[in-house]
Amino acid sequence: MGDDCATEFIERVKVWQRINSIAGHLGWDQETLMPPKGAKSRGETLAWLASESHRHITDPALERCLSELESRLDSISKKNPDLACNVRRMRRSVDQASKLPADLVTELTRTQSEAMQIWQQARAESDFSLFAPVLGKIIGLTKQKMKYLGGENATYDILLDEYEIGMTMADYDPLFAGLRQRLVPLLEKIVNASKDNPSPSLPEGMKFAISAQESFCTNVSKLTGFDFEAGRMDPSTHPFSAGLWAGDTRFTTRYDLHDPFSCLYAVLHETGHALYEQGLPEIHTLTPRANAISLGVHESQSRLWENQIGRTASFWSVVLDDFRNHFPDLPLELTPADMNRIANHVEPSFIRVEADEVTYNLHVMLRYEVEKQIFDNDLPVEEIPRVWNKLFAQWFGLEVPDDAHGCLQDVHWSMAAFGYFPTYTLGNLYAAQLLNKMSDDLGSIDTLVSSGDWSAILDWLRNEIHQHGMMYDPSELIERATGKLPSPEAFLNYIETKYSQIYDL
Amino acid sequence: MGDDCATEFIERVKVWQRINSIAGHLGWDQETLMPPKGAKSRGETLAWLASESHRHITDPALERCLSELESRLDSISKKNPDLACNVRRMRRSVDQASKLPADLVTELTRTQSEAMQIWQQARAESDFSLFAPVLGKIIGLTKQKMKYLGGENATYDILLDEYEIGMTMADYDPLFAGLRQRLVPLLEKIVNASKDNPSPSLPEGMKFAISAQESFCTNVSKLTGFDFEAGRMDPSTHPFSAGLWAGDTRFTTRYDLHDPFSCLYAVLHETGHALYEQGLPEIHTLTPRANAISLGVHESQSRLWENQIGRTASFWSVVLDDFRNHFPDLPLELTPADMNRIANHVEPSFIRVEADEVTYNLHVMLRYEVEKQIFDNDLPVEEIPRVWNKLFAQWFGLEVPDDAHGCLQDVHWSMAAFGYFPTYTLGNLYAAQLLNKMSDDLGSIDTLVSSGDWSAILDWLRNEIHQHGMMYDPSELIERATGKLPSPEAFLNYIETKYSQIYDL
Repeated sequence: MGDDCATEFIERVKVWQRINSIAGHLGWDQETLMPPKGAKSRGETLAWLASESHRHITDPALERCLSELESRLDSISKKNPDLACNVRRMRRSVDQASKLPADLVTELTRTQSEAMQIWQQARAESDFSLFAPVLGKIIGLTKQKMKYLGGENATYDILLDEYEIGMTMADYDPLFAGLRQRLVPLLEKIVNASKDNPSPSLPEGMKFAISAQESFCTNVSKLTGFDFEAGRMDPSTHPFSAGLWAGDTRFTTRYDLHDPFSCLYAVLHETGHALYEQGLPEIHTLTPRANAISLGVHESQSRLWENQIGRTASFWSVVLDDFRNHFPDLPLELTPADMNRIANHVEPSFIRVEADEVTYNLHVMLRYEVEKQIFDNDLPVEEIPRVWNKLFAQWFGLEVPDDAHGCLQDVHWSMAAFGYFPTYTLGNLYAAQLLNKMSDDLGSIDTLVSSGDWSAILDWLRNEIHQHGMMYDPSELIERATGKLPSPEAFLNYIETKYSQIYDL
Repeated sequence: MGDDCATEFIERVKVWQRINSIAGHLGWDQETLMPPKGAKSRGETLAWLASESHRHITDPALERCLSELESRLDSISKKNPDLACNVRRMRRSVDQASKLPADLVTELTRTQSEAMQIWQQARAESDFSLFAPVLGKIIGLTKQKMKYLGGENATYDILLDEYEIGMTMADYDPLFAGLRQRLVPLLEKIVNASKDNPSPSLPEGMKFAISAQESFCTNVSKLTGFDFEAGRMDPSTHPFSAGLWAGDTRFTTRYDLHDPFSCLYAVLHETGHALYEQGLPEIHTLTPRANAISLGVHESQSRLWENQIGRTASFWSVVLDDFRNHFPDLPLELTPADMNRIANHVEPSFIRVEADEVTYNLHVMLRYEVEKQIFDNDLPVEEIPRVWNKLFAQWFGLEVPDDAHGCLQDVHWSMAAFGYFPTYTLGNLYAAQLLNKMSDDLGSIDTLVSSGDWSAILDWLRNEIHQHGMMYDPSELIERATGKLPSPEAFLNYIETKYSQIYDL
């Protein structure tokens, strides 16, 4: 009976994940290809798939199999650690889904879809008051969700843990404080140094043909080791990646005729995500054992390729010739070091997704502070712009000119993704630790990158991160890979060294 | 209770069709975008969706609702003809699905997937003996299917009826004989006339940039009235169209650098299909009331736009300027009449999908004769090439040089689509009848086409065909639209008049 139970368990898990993959695929299509008039039927189909997914994850037959397997988890862990991993991870998913009443899930889904449209309009008009009522509703529903998940005394922690297993305010508070303590003075130094020593720039008004950007960025993505026989790159408004199916991982980018860096670094970032998906063990497809462990670890892969490999002079020494081939009008005097300096230009600015490595985490922790006040101090929704703008002035030294450049800029809140932002910073920290250890194991990463053969880098990531799927919790995974628990130290050292060099501090 | 039953019935029908639409969407993606290594997981997902679809269509709860509604169908027909239509059409679908054991469905699906791969290899090597074993297996499974559907004495009729409701050998035999009787001598006359008066042609070796073809063909598709806000055009190996969702109809085309006509007429053909899908009543989405009634009627829409509108001098008088804009190297002396003559070049040839209007139906009836012998005379599979080649010599006056140019050319048999081919000819016949009546109602179609405003043509088709969905059987629909039952007369008159003019017979 035991083996039958395991077989039935895995089959049920696969059906559930298959439904989620189908929904993911239709979501990808919605963002890349779907004609506008298809929105209504697409929304209905995604809602139906969400209800089917909920039906399967809360199926008593799945719970029965799961409980039976849990009753002998110790012996399973020894004989079949992959199965044990699937049992442990599915328990979390089943519990989370079972605790939420179907009505609440439906209401949240419906309200998110409504909120997304209102948010787009509010951002376009830069008017928070348009967005406030539906945001208030989403916050109210999220507070209900918190109680279902964590009881009457549930705090913001329950949301943080949802996006990064095991992380709470007790972890984030000192981590963010430590970061701020060294990032704010570094930023000041850079801003001062920039006055005497401005960054070079690409020629004003120069056009970079979209088809040439596509071709160049495809070459860069291939250089990382992304397998285009098992994936695709397409344009979309907001870049994203989707590990849809075994053998079929897709990512997107956007094109700006005057700024080839926008596309290039989006491609490197999304390729990093997509390489993780391609490196998950295909034999365990459609089970947690072949899923990415967390958003933070996912972001470590994207940031490592985007920043620690892509924003270096070594990177530019490898790709500059091909870049020139694609854009023959580029002035000959621009060197790899110049390109690198352009790519690492630091400047306090209002928009998170356009921020440099030094200021990026300040954007993240600002959102964290605001969310903490919303969920743990009952900050009234109409107070959000005031709190946002005050913190911004404090940390960035800039007055937010309007809500579109402030608290209306991100899509996350209209998707009820509270507790999500901090995982971006975790990704940066993990990436720096991974790079340190990779360098211990493989020698100078700069030398490796300059060689133009990056396969050792990808192999190392496959071995230390990708192949493990959800086997280990994020912090355990990072500790196994680097010998150290996650901490901001490696990141701060990396960022101080890098920018001291670039800005000659 | 009655109304609840109707509501439940429609809900169940929509779930079933939603699953079919999802499968259709993933099938579209497979042919247009999917990276090669995604094939395995895609196949598994499509197989799962097929089993889910079968589970829903054979659900006893659906049968219960259906029976209850059937018990009072007379009164429903008066009060709610849309519901009555859905009840009648779903009865056919439920019965067909219920008669087939799930094992047989699975085995057929599995074997088709295998056969498709073997067929591609066999065609590439032009070796029928490679394909024969799996084709034999598919024929065997299809014969089993015929018995489940029609009892021990089931004939080829059961397959014909599956693709075009109500059509049997008793209908097709005289129809095809009548066609042959007038097409074969017409072909001879044209071939003789061509000797003294060869067609003009596009300059040998001239290149037609793919992006320019895409842009020109998009313009042509827009001219027909296709709504690109509710649909897309993409490249694929074999052109096809897919009415996936309300507000989202997609079709594909292929590009040949040296032959812009290949893409243009594929686009007109598939646009014709896609316009039908866009014209189905959205309010009844995901029920038979909003489905196309048959393959034959579908083909009438594609052939009407492709041939009766697109292969005319009037058409070329409208689009030639835009064609020249896209391909400025085109020799100035080519007139609309020349372009039309090139587009209507008649010549006996081996490949159906490349055939002209005069020979096309001979290709179809050849396949019909071979299939009749397979299913009603137990023709052994290894005899197929001999029978094929003999008929070909008789009707086309040509010796088939190899199997790739003979019985291996079509994909249909590897998909177990026996009984499908005749619907292509029905489409041609219906289209000619529709054009006659349209001309009675709207005046000269040539004048209309020349005006460049084709909205009256689309409106007429929307009104007479598209809006009715599956309300009427194909022959009833054609009779209602044209005042006449389907017959070859209109088509033969059309073809004789058209080609007598073009070839000055």
